[in-house]
Amino acid sequence: GETIRATLFPGDGIGPEIAESVKQVFNVAGVPIEWEEHYVGTEVDPRTESFLTWESLESVRRNKVGLKGPMATPIGKGHRSLNLTLRKELGLYANVRPCNSLPGYKTRYDDVNLVTIRENTEGEYSGLEHQVVRGVVESLKIITRQASLRVAEYAFHYAKANGRERVSAIHKANIMRKTDGLFLKCCREVSEKYPEIQYEEVIIDNCCMTLVKNPGLFDVLVMPNLYGDIISDLCAGLIGGLGLTPSCNIGEGGICLAEAVHGSAPDIAGKNLANPTALMLSAVMLLRHMQFNDKADRIHNAILQTIAEGKYRTADLGGKASTSEFTNAVCDHI
Amino acid sequence: GETIRATLFPGDGIGPEIAESVKQVFNVAGVPIEWEEHYVGTEVDPRTESFLTWESLESVRRNKVGLKGPMATPIGKGHRSLNLTLRKELGLYANVRPCNSLPGYKTRYDDVNLVTIRENTEGEYSGLEHQVVRGVVESLKIITRQASLRVAEYAFHYAKANGRERVSAIHKANIMRKTDGLFLKCCREVSEKYPEIQYEEVIIDNCCMTLVKNPGLFDVLVMPNLYGDIISDLCAGLIGGLGLTPSCNIGEGGICLAEAVHGSAPDIAGKNLANPTALMLSAVMLLRHMQFNDKADRIHNAILQTIAEGKYRTADLGGKASTSEFTNAVCDHI
Ligand SMILES: CC(C)[C@H](C(=O)O)[C@@H](O)C(=O)O
Ligand SMILES: CC(C)[C@H](C(=O)O)[C@@H](O)C(=O)O
Repeated sequence: GETIRATLFPGDGIGPEIAESVKQVFNVAGVPIEWEEHYVGTEVDPRTESFLTWESLESVRRNKVGLKGPMATPIGKGHRSLNLTLRKELGLYANVRPCNSLPGYKTRYDDVNLVTIRENTEGEYSGLEHQVVRGVVESLKIITRQASLRVAEYAFHYAKANGRERVSAIHKANIMRKTDGLFLKCCREVSEKYPEIQYEEVIIDNCCMTLVKNPGLFDVLVMPNLYGDIISDLCAGLIGGLGLTPSCNIGEGGICLAEAVHGSAPDIAGKNLANPTALMLSAVMLLRHMQFNDKADRIHNAILQTIAEGKYRTADLGGKASTSEFTNAVCDHI
Repeated sequence: GETIRATLFPGDGIGPEIAESVKQVFNVAGVPIEWEEHYVGTEVDPRTESFLTWESLESVRRNKVGLKGPMATPIGKGHRSLNLTLRKELGLYANVRPCNSLPGYKTRYDDVNLVTIRENTEGEYSGLEHQVVRGVVESLKIITRQASLRVAEYAFHYAKANGRERVSAIHKANIMRKTDGLFLKCCREVSEKYPEIQYEEVIIDNCCMTLVKNPGLFDVLVMPNLYGDIISDLCAGLIGGLGLTPSCNIGEGGICLAEAVHGSAPDIAGKNLANPTALMLSAVMLLRHMQFNDKADRIHNAILQTIAEGKYRTADLGGKASTSEFTNAVCDHI
């Protein structure tokens, strides 16, 4: 069979270890992917002094599919977060995070089954800020019709393709009438092309209250950048945290860059203690994007079974298993 | 004894009924308050066509203490929310919401004991928005040193006066470096005057995740306007919703305007079905502000006991009691 090339950015800290876990699992499952591995992160080669090479970006642009581990933000003034730089350079306009209660891993909630879709390029993340006079600073939130339509299209497309019933647009248009108002207008426009998908608008404060009271009421949520940042982490908290939450970014020209959104955990890096679940589940999203649905299902079930059995759990989940013990257990279930 | 004059805005919908409950409870407890009642709301007198009279504002400015029920937003273009107008006119710079698990009223959380303090006048609520070109709109978030210092001062003062141990400033300064950066700088400055109070800074996405996983980790939270809007409702959700959450606003010149932050519930208005708990608890905050600590304690305990016993619960809490049955039960406990 043919192999498909995919980019791999292991990233910083625990990144290389959990990337190793994914490679192992993919091998055992016989996924026909050949990884093109590039180092992007804060520990730079002293010769190049580059955090992010042109080749790394080109690799994703060429392959259209990639997997990314955690990246720390370079220390020192003027350095932008590498995550933000990648979003910008690759036009990663939608961040998608399915959030499902994991059978066997108990939290206060057992009925979470929702997907957050976050506009990932503009809004409060414009970087446009300045001091007006001493003691008065302002920042600009930018909402465009183009980016709002694009993420709304993606949300409805996703809902339909994944058998979801409803899209909720999250906003604060009662206060930010023009910016969030434009975002809602775009969502409404797109919703009309999807009569089979229900559409509703929910104010962000009310949304957060409902999420903690009754997350089962939500299905697909679409929202501007900052609200997505906040709500996707809130939702991750409902099911146990960022160590268990997959994520992928949809970019211009059909790019899909899956990523673990947790930190690089430098304190436990290299100690075979990290939990590779989030990166594995993100890799499963990548497989589904590539239409390897059977492989995706097999790996997904193996991860869920390993967690449900509870015999091999890493320290962050209250267990004693090492990264490789957990990974081996997943491989055994495949 | 002398009586103290306080302003009462019963508000819209269920407002008059729940205001009646507070009056009854205050009477039974012998609170020496004389209410100066003013109608502020959307159902205007056809002769004046005014939602908000000068006399109403003057009453709060003169008395410095007031209690406010829910107010709907007038329908039709160009009308601003009455809540926002009051904040602006009265310089209500801090919204304070203690959030405590109620013994006997079960939610997923039983260890919530925190206070959110929200900057209430600027930030994302500036109302400054415009269309740059077709399809591109922007809104301005304004952070000032003056307003940030003022709310930070209040937060630390509150923490100290109420025996709290820690203040957490909530922000997204890794993205909005200048605006949220200024907010943090002001909090840090004030924190130095309160060495006995611990101080920490928490990024908003992380804060929301921690709140749903382990709200017991937080004590006093202080934050810019929109984050406060979001987080205070999230926290209300943790203990059961806005029907159970007290709130008060601190304004210029020492004003304290307590308010129930839930909606006016027009569907059940006038039917003796509304839950007066949030307004009662808000009124208790007002009493504490006025140093009527004994009366405050007695009423507070009576409310908590009535809820804990669970015999008289209104429909929103899954019970069958009417507003007056619940109110009578509280009075019996005083
Ligand atoms: C690291 C930070 C810049 C980033 C963001 O705010 O988008 C993170 O919170 C995320 O959600 O990916
Ligand atoms: C009604 C609305 C304008 C208001 C706000 O956003 O501040 C409300 O959500 C609140 O928290 O009091």
